[in-house]
Amino acid sequence: MRLPRFLTPTTVVSAHCDLPCGVYDPAQARIEAESVKAIQEKYQANTDPEFRTRAIIIKEQRAELVKHHLWVLWTDYFKPPHFEKYPNLHQLFNEATKLAGAAGAKGSLDPAVGDQLLGKIEEISKIFWETKQA
Amino acid sequence: MRLPRFLTPTTVVSAHCDLPCGVYDPAQARIEAESVKAIQEKYQANTDPEFRTRAIIIKEQRAELVKHHLWVLWTDYFKPPHFEKYPNLHQLFNEATKLAGAAGAKGSLDPAVGDQLLGKIEEISKIFWETKQA
Amino acid sequence: MRLPRFLTPTTVVSAHCDLPCGVYDPAQARIEAESVKAIQEKYQANTDPEFRTRAIIIKEQRAELVKHHLWVLWTDYFKPPHFEKYPNLHQLFNEATKLAGAAGAKGSLDPAVGDQLLGKIEEISKIFWETKQA
Amino acid sequence: MRLPRFLTPTTVVSAHCDLPCGVYDPAQARIEAESVKAIQEKYQANTDPEFRTRAIIIKEQRAELVKHHLWVLWTDYFKPPHFEKYPNLHQLFNEATKLAGAAGAKGSLDPAVGDQLLGKIEEISKIFWETKQA
Amino acid sequence: MRLPRFLTPTTVVSAHCDLPCGVYDPAQARIEAESVKAIQEKYQANTDPEFRTRAIIIKEQRAELVKHHLWVLWTDYFKPPHFEKYPNLHQLFNEATKLAGAAGAKGSLDPAVGDQLLGKIEEISKIFWETKQA
Amino acid sequence: MRLPRFLTPTTVVSAHCDLPCGVYDPAQARIEAESVKAIQEKYQANTDPEFRTRAIIIKEQRAELVKHHLWVLWTDYFKPPHFEKYPNLHQLFNEATKLAGAAGAKGSLDPAVGDQLLGKIEEISKIFWETKQA
Repeated sequence: MRLPRFLTPTTVVSAHCDLPCGVYDPAQARIEAESVKAIQEKYQANTDPEFRTRAIIIKEQRAELVKHHLWVLWTDYFKPPHFEKYPNLHQLFNEATKLAGAAGAKGSLDPAVGDQLLGKIEEISKIFWETKQA
Repeated sequence: MRLPRFLTPTTVVSAHCDLPCGVYDPAQARIEAESVKAIQEKYQANTDPEFRTRAIIIKEQRAELVKHHLWVLWTDYFKPPHFEKYPNLHQLFNEATKLAGAAGAKGSLDPAVGDQLLGKIEEISKIFWETKQA
Repeated sequence: MRLPRFLTPTTVVSAHCDLPCGVYDPAQARIEAESVKAIQEKYQANTDPEFRTRAIIIKEQRAELVKHHLWVLWTDYFKPPHFEKYPNLHQLFNEATKLAGAAGAKGSLDPAVGDQLLGKIEEISKIFWETKQA
Repeated sequence: MRLPRFLTPTTVVSAHCDLPCGVYDPAQARIEAESVKAIQEKYQANTDPEFRTRAIIIKEQRAELVKHHLWVLWTDYFKPPHFEKYPNLHQLFNEATKLAGAAGAKGSLDPAVGDQLLGKIEEISKIFWETKQA
Repeated sequence: MRLPRFLTPTTVVSAHCDLPCGVYDPAQARIEAESVKAIQEKYQANTDPEFRTRAIIIKEQRAELVKHHLWVLWTDYFKPPHFEKYPNLHQLFNEATKLAGAAGAKGSLDPAVGDQLLGKIEEISKIFWETKQA
Repeated sequence: MRLPRFLTPTTVVSAHCDLPCGVYDPAQARIEAESVKAIQEKYQANTDPEFRTRAIIIKEQRAELVKHHLWVLWTDYFKPPHFEKYPNLHQLFNEATKLAGAAGAKGSLDPAVGDQLLGKIEEISKIFWETKQA
């Protein structure tokens, strides 16, 4: 709810954007997604029930943070001209946040899902940095 | 982070959606938006500095909840076929969450902005209930 | 801590209640309780251990929200004259929040408990709307 | 939501109360209330606008915690026989949480309100420890 | 983020510490640690899978609160002269927070770990009250 | 409380550290600190009272996150051998978190304080990456 926004090196804030701070970076979503994937891998490698329960708890939290960071980018950083220039951007965010969310009992602790999530975030990140150049 | 999802009267859960609970309702976003607007009105009607500070604090929290409820609907409830059928749905959510977010020093405590926000949520709600009928 | 309050259609705020916004509705507690019950049902219908763990995590969060919404109503909405007029109102809230809380290993994932909880909330809701008429 | 419960020296848990941990203590509410009062005093003693804003923010958080600790005691610790033995206990909690809540622009930063709140918590605490003896 | 600080009976706030409120007490960390230990004991005494999952969830939250309370003391209460006078104080806090954190699948639900944690907090508490006398 | 941990490219997790995920990076603290500084600058550049109140609210949240990220690194990532090798590491973290905390009415919205905070985090970051090489 009161979760992080991010760094940018240069002129971030347009005239009509007073606060929040104008500091964004898709790295934050990526880092949490790396954490999700690491937890998925450890879950698969350890059959201790208590460990697995803790892994699921912590994974839920990390995945929720991935979603949050992506939502913040989608709502607060990206502006209408960006969505015009990148017509698939809405869908990309929607797919990424869906992946971050619990994909059901089957997928949610499979590292392959973590990999797909990281791939989506990489696509978003690429667009993000292009818009920062512009 | 651990925020509400919602009620639906009948068959909610499609075959591939195991958990969360399948209970969604745009009323929750609307209710928080009503709260935002009520705070904006009270802020305008009361010049006591302490009152105004508390109003701003609480409004930030309510607005954050509006955004959260809308994000959850957008990511967890709506599925690709919905976005195909309602091509402006992505944009609608993006505009609504932008409105819910801080619109800068000028707009964020203006009840007219609260009204616009409620209008957007009403549009989303209409679509939501259409998809429930389908 | 920063959890939702609610919509009311008409004159909400008495003279001595400046802020919070005066927007309350027992629907919010009910909706979370519907979610609790839906999770209880899904838990019973699915023996996958990972699914069940996730169900328990999410149910704890929803149940906590039910309690929070009820507490807010009990403390912030209802005033001394209401408690005079409805002498069992304190007890009703106490029983409802106890039901929302963890009822021990036996009960907490039994949909029948979810049903009881919904019943209590319905009683509260009835009183709430009567007081709004008055 | 994920807030503290408390210590008791001896047999705490009755046969039908499996979890949470059975550790309660009204000291926690009292401590937060001391914090509320200390903030109210500092607010009164310092006219720097930035300081005052920070005081209001932090006081809102502390007051919310007072309410939460009291709610937890009221719902999770006290059982029907307690409420029978102490017929004013419901009302006492209701008054205490109302005091902890924002008492409007006038009262919420007045240390006298903090004192009243501490008085109510002391009354609750006295009953609490009597029930522990029983 | 919005977590408790604490009571002290007398002159708490030095000239250069304006806000937070100057109310600290290691009892808060201890109380949460008692809760952690109580949960560990109940976990060991109950093999019901659902109960155990709930115990792990709640223990994670309580342990996180222990860490938070200790961190707040370490950063906000203790000042450079304290660390000079008690050269092992940094290490003591570091060990205590490490113990509060998940010690791996083996240790995290062993009441003996809860006991060690309580021992560390007792050491911190002793130093704390010595500094209050000074 | 349920806040982010971080990415590292290579072998992170020692044999006895099963979970959390082993993903750490001081960049997260730095990014929040950049946000703190950006808010401080915007606060200084804008005298609108409402804007300033919102700036203070959001700055408090960001500063709290800086502290949290640093605390997590200090407790969860760094191990006894690190503290032996870098004897000032405890003090460095303590100073950084103190800077991140509210430094009183005077300092807390001064970008120079944000700069000092970023300097401390840079020192921590340097040590962190040295330990990753080792």
